Amino acid sequence: MAGALEIDSVSPNVNGKLEILTDDLIPTAVVPEPLPKVVTAAGGGPSESEEDDEGLEKPPKKSREIVLGRNVHTTCLAVTEPEANDEFTGDKDAYMAGVLARYRKTLLERTKHHLGYPYNLDFDYGALGQLQHFSINNLGDPFIESNYGVHSRQFEVGVLDWFARLWEIEKNEYWGYITNCGTEGNLHGILVGREVFPDGILYASRESHYSVFKAARMYRMDCEKVDTLISGEIDCSDLRVKLLANKDKPAILNVNIGTTVKGAVDDLDLVIQTLEECGFSHDRFYIHCDGALFGLMMPFVKRAPKVSFKKPIGSVSVSGHKFVGCPMPCGVQLTRMAHINVLSSNVEYLASRDATIMGSRNGHAPIFLWYTLNRKGYKGFQKEVQKCLRNAHYLKDRLRAAGISAMLNELSSTVVFERPRDEEFVRRWQLACEGNIAHVVVMPNVTIEKLDVFLNELVEKRSTWYQGDIQPPCIAADVGKDNCVCALHK
Amino acid sequence: MAGALEIDSVSPNVNGKLEILTDDLIPTAVVPEPLPKVVTAAGGGPSESEEDDEGLEKPPKKSREIVLGRNVHTTCLAVTEPEANDEFTGDKDAYMAGVLARYRKTLLERTKHHLGYPYNLDFDYGALGQLQHFSINNLGDPFIESNYGVHSRQFEVGVLDWFARLWEIEKNEYWGYITNCGTEGNLHGILVGREVFPDGILYASRESHYSVFKAARMYRMDCEKVDTLISGEIDCSDLRVKLLANKDKPAILNVNIGTTVKGAVDDLDLVIQTLEECGFSHDRFYIHCDGALFGLMMPFVKRAPKVSFKKPIGSVSVSGHKFVGCPMPCGVQLTRMAHINVLSSNVEYLASRDATIMGSRNGHAPIFLWYTLNRKGYKGFQKEVQKCLRNAHYLKDRLRAAGISAMLNELSSTVVFERPRDEEFVRRWQLACEGNIAHVVVMPNVTIEKLDVFLNELVEKRSTWYQGDIQPPCIAADVGKDNCVCALHK
Repeated sequence: MAGALEIDSVSPNVNGKLEILTDDLIPTAVVPEPLPKVVTAAGGGPSESEEDDEGLEKPPKKSREIVLGRNVHTTCLAVTEPEANDEFTGDKDAYMAGVLARYRKTLLERTKHHLGYPYNLDFDYGALGQLQHFSINNLGDPFIESNYGVHSRQFEVGVLDWFARLWEIEKNEYWGYITNCGTEGNLHGILVGREVFPDGILYASRESHYSVFKAARMYRMDCEKVDTLISGEIDCSDLRVKLLANKDKPAILNVNIGTTVKGAVDDLDLVIQTLEECGFSHDRFYIHCDGALFGLMMPFVKRAPKVSFKKPIGSVSVSGHKFVGCPMPCGVQLTRMAHINVLSSNVEYLASRDATIMGSRNGHAPIFLWYTLNRKGYKGFQKEVQKCLRNAHYLKDRLRAAGISAMLNELSSTVVFERPRDEEFVRRWQLACEGNIAHVVVMPNVTIEKLDVFLNELVEKRSTWYQGDIQPPCIAADVGKDNCVCALHK
Repeated sequence: MAGALEIDSVSPNVNGKLEILTDDLIPTAVVPEPLPKVVTAAGGGPSESEEDDEGLEKPPKKSREIVLGRNVHTTCLAVTEPEANDEFTGDKDAYMAGVLARYRKTLLERTKHHLGYPYNLDFDYGALGQLQHFSINNLGDPFIESNYGVHSRQFEVGVLDWFARLWEIEKNEYWGYITNCGTEGNLHGILVGREVFPDGILYASRESHYSVFKAARMYRMDCEKVDTLISGEIDCSDLRVKLLANKDKPAILNVNIGTTVKGAVDDLDLVIQTLEECGFSHDRFYIHCDGALFGLMMPFVKRAPKVSFKKPIGSVSVSGHKFVGCPMPCGVQLTRMAHINVLSSNVEYLASRDATIMGSRNGHAPIFLWYTLNRKGYKGFQKEVQKCLRNAHYLKDRLRAAGISAMLNELSSTVVFERPRDEEFVRRWQLACEGNIAHVVVMPNVTIEKLDVFLNELVEKRSTWYQGDIQPPCIAADVGKDNCVCALHK
């Protein structure tokens, strides 16, 4: 015992003679040479430096390929073993500081030129910087304390209560947690649906987020893809046909509160009406509302169909890094306590009542959300929603005035338009594209000034893309004839 | 168009007259009163203030109950709507600063008294504070760039390459990503196994992490629980019996590189030998190695069976917030490229080649890992592993010398001992308990000095717990007779 103390007090860092200590204390014996050999990478190129990632001023890259079965290592910051004398020379610290400073510059530039993804990049969490020193982990269930004391459950539950009020469910009737992202919310909501109805069929529109179909595959569920209207909303007449063909099995539905590409909002009331008309009583269907982006915006839009637990829905999820804004992805998932009891009844599989998907959970995200919700409040979000919808209309109107096909759904801030011909332009503005269309999601950090810079650049570039015989594409199939101003439809 | 601009330039923040603007621009019309009514919480108590969470100096709480079907709202920091004049009075900012300062104090205290969870709380990421201003998201696959530019893939791939070298697989033969936690690694590894062998049976020892059995349920897989030895290792004779009973179906195995409770390392070589002896050729089994904690420590222990892709294993996962240390949970998952191609072949379900479980992924975690790996290197980790093993031996020896039953597996820094009788003591030191045993996981931040404080306190308290007829419990069933010093076995 005293011997062990003695041994430990000989600091190997100071005298550097590890060997002396290792052999007389067998279980702590370490491998003499810890540095693993580099495995020969036949055909694998060397890691290039971070300079490759700066982007903006470089000549256009060749168009990126998605190669199944190959990893692309083009931009990789290799981890290198410290030199023995690093502590004295400071070379390593200097190298890393340089990498981080360049990276920060890239992030600033990339944050400035960003329009395509529904992330609110406008936040100031300076007051929370002090918390980065702690390993905050909300292990398991938010409502059951674990013995690990460095958690933020008190903030998490505050945030969940705020959303429970928004979506009209009593504190002791809901269960929920703060997820790692919108996908985790969908995975959870659909899993709850499957546990409630083990032989249920999953129905989701074609324009649902791909995580919905990923869930069906993971969970081994039968899945029916439902057609969409030109707006991107679920086509309830097709839903009816598919429900009637499977009347013998319960229905699990994914309802989109803002689709990824067109920002379309499925008509929740019409979906419920369709279910009822097809003979599905309330105890034979489960509805998960995927509110990734618009779940937090819609409550503040006058004519939007309301997402509410007063209706026969089972769960709602929303992303935290989208409309709220957060340094890392996160989300909120709310469901009915009654459903969670079904999930938790199988205690053989779940330690205590851990009904989350992940065990360890990021404890910083709830604090970020708590901070913003407190500062903005329901009224602050209302103002921001209004601003986004206005600016989205401005963008759509200006695109159309410039002769560019464009669509904006009534309840959305996602402007869909003709895909820019130049991939470098797409990348510069970080537009999300699908087929012939691209979109801009107007978030609180997207100002009229930023839109003007974008529009002017687009109009100018476009005049060089379409000359002589080269015509802008027809996108009527995606946005409808009324929104298309191609040669045929204008 | 110009009109829209005009409307937007009237800032509703300044003149406060939202109503004027809303009715003439229908799609942006907002609900007149955004504040949702509080749903009556029949029976739900009011949210209490954060004071409840400070803990240390208070009289012992009554033992916490896990009540299925009820949310415990005892410690909740409610989100409140800002007052109209908050911007002028600064009251809200002052309130929030107060909450955060108190919370920080709690975190400091809780971080100081922490022994039970395998988290290295000793890190300094001050240099990375500047990055908290950015919404960094590594959407989808680490090796395929998305159009979203605010990412950290170059750091992520650097970290993955470092682990590929550690686990001996070539750069162009592996695929992997940085996960949200150890559970996501297990969920991914087992999913890959199931996709490779759709009718495979999952085998895992009883002492595997509960996420393994959660995966079996989520994925609708048949699962065989295998017995364990007293050390916590998988019992390969029982594995043999169960494999022979299911010879007609492929085998998917979870091999523990350090179990949660006892830190036991399954003998990978013996598992492979057992498979071979039972007639399972290499194309009829898939091994996932759950290296949550010890996956990163074992490469630096001399006599440990090596985890290496040169052996017939399919995937390895390890946690990033455990031995490395990170403000939020994260992990590393590595598998063979050949397996991912099986997963990705179904492009109908997966957009491009997104073979991760989550879509949006925290871009900060890879930078934290990259930073620490660069600073410490393989050699730095070797020193820390050595220190942990030494200190674990010190703790075990002192416990035994004090007449307390205790066990330490040869390849582990997890010391298992008699569960302290007082729950307040357990909570104070944040010990993880199961039945009659508790454990301390000796991590790099656990010094001899901290262990001495803990030991002295335990010995002192214990002399008050066990007086007269009250005897310490027998834990021979958990740790074996040789490690038990109860009245019967000492």
